[in-house]
Amino acid sequence: MKKNLPIGIFDSGIGGLTVYKVLKETFPYEKFIYLGDTARVPYGIKSHETIIQYSVQNGNFLLKKGVKMLVVACNTSSAHAISHLADEFPVPVIGVIKSGVKMACKITKNKRIGVIGTPSTIDSKAYQRGIKEILPDANVFSKACPLFVPLVEEGWIHHKITREVAEIYLSDLKKKNIDTLILGCTHYPLLKDVIGEIMGNDVKLVSSGESIREDLINLMELLDLKSEDKEIKEDLFYVTDSVDRFKSVGEIFLNGKIKNIYHIDLKVTFEFKEE
Amino acid sequence: MKKNLPIGIFDSGIGGLTVYKVLKETFPYEKFIYLGDTARVPYGIKSHETIIQYSVQNGNFLLKKGVKMLVVACNTSSAHAISHLADEFPVPVIGVIKSGVKMACKITKNKRIGVIGTPSTIDSKAYQRGIKEILPDANVFSKACPLFVPLVEEGWIHHKITREVAEIYLSDLKKKNIDTLILGCTHYPLLKDVIGEIMGNDVKLVSSGESIREDLINLMELLDLKSEDKEIKEDLFYVTDSVDRFKSVGEIFLNGKIKNIYHIDLKVTFEFKEE
Repeated sequence: MKKNLPIGIFDSGIGGLTVYKVLKETFPYEKFIYLGDTARVPYGIKSHETIIQYSVQNGNFLLKKGVKMLVVACNTSSAHAISHLADEFPVPVIGVIKSGVKMACKITKNKRIGVIGTPSTIDSKAYQRGIKEILPDANVFSKACPLFVPLVEEGWIHHKITREVAEIYLSDLKKKNIDTLILGCTHYPLLKDVIGEIMGNDVKLVSSGESIREDLINLMELLDLKSEDKEIKEDLFYVTDSVDRFKSVGEIFLNGKIKNIYHIDLKVTFEFKEE
Repeated sequence: MKKNLPIGIFDSGIGGLTVYKVLKETFPYEKFIYLGDTARVPYGIKSHETIIQYSVQNGNFLLKKGVKMLVVACNTSSAHAISHLADEFPVPVIGVIKSGVKMACKITKNKRIGVIGTPSTIDSKAYQRGIKEILPDANVFSKACPLFVPLVEEGWIHHKITREVAEIYLSDLKKKNIDTLILGCTHYPLLKDVIGEIMGNDVKLVSSGESIREDLINLMELLDLKSEDKEIKEDLFYVTDSVDRFKSVGEIFLNGKIKNIYHIDLKVTFEFKEE
């Protein structure tokens, strides 16, 4: 039965595990198949066309695994490729941008919303457009924070340098009197403490995992896609680069062990093809 | 005639332009074909196997363009893939690691040499092994500096944060009484001022472009590969991601204009293939 099939989730790398974690806690009886495209990470500094290509390839891999729906955990992929994925794929596709937009619009009182993300996500203006559709008179202030991902991957979560970089990136946003800040990259929840301290208690932080959680509950209800099984499933993890690094860094992200990680080989059919 | 063919040079992205720049200044009458694999950059956080695959694909692209030799400007590729490339390709292959090793061994007086680079380059121990072959009693001290590349790409060349990060990364090396430091990544020459100030005047910095320059002069002499043309050639640049970003960031690296940049499309034959 379709409803008993797994849920596919992909990210450019490891960051999407922050989304997976929230979803697994919410749906323990669902089986998840996670794909991290670690051989081509990061997406956030790459072009619109390249991000679409990579996202469609990732979606195709998960479709072949027989998933009942597709969760795009990567903000950069959601920003650039979500409509392509929705058009091309025969299963429901849900992405973190739309969910983040909806949650931010629900939370804000003064309609002044900040967005931080990778350069590609911010350049796409996807959050901005989404917010304006729901709240046409909202003020949206955005800022690309390209060093946040490498700082998290370096493990400098509570480091003095990370605080200083965050103060530089957030200094303009602090002056905008926003009451809501979207953490528009799946790495950023790990910097929640630092970002929260700098922005102050009056600014609510919206993270991708928490916001897509609501949408997934609703979607599975509406389409009757909830698994009937009542035992906790072992999930599968696929990565395009080294299993070892995904395991070691991923366990920091999940704050727990990861089993069942498999490498996917990209080498065989690849060749440069000039336009 | 073979000697009048172009020289192929590849890097994981933009950094190799620091090598290209030195070589073009040295050999203005040679035509260079540069390939930057910007759709998959950075290599420095990826695995041995993935780096070999990407490097071989890059080399094949340049071979099909009819180059007379191959310069591997990327330290990470040189560290992991140089022997594969040399075995597989019918043209001379020369990489930045070996050149950097030789120059450092020539410069050092106290045989205490430092090496900084990406995590993959440092993990490979390629510099260490190379130095020990020439100077078996040398002491080599190495340190991965994963934030240097994103800091350069953020344009924070002389930024306070970059200085602080460099002080953290280099603090152990400073205590080792080295007299020579290999900048084992093509982005690092842009941080020469900061690194030089921290390490002090007694430490000589060895960069990839300057060291491979010597080797290329010798190689072209030995194999009689110097072009007979006496007019300055227009070079060609190929990138796997956006032409615009390569142009804008690349012009900072070269401190000059770049013409003739072409996009290579990767999408057509790619598909996930499970092991």
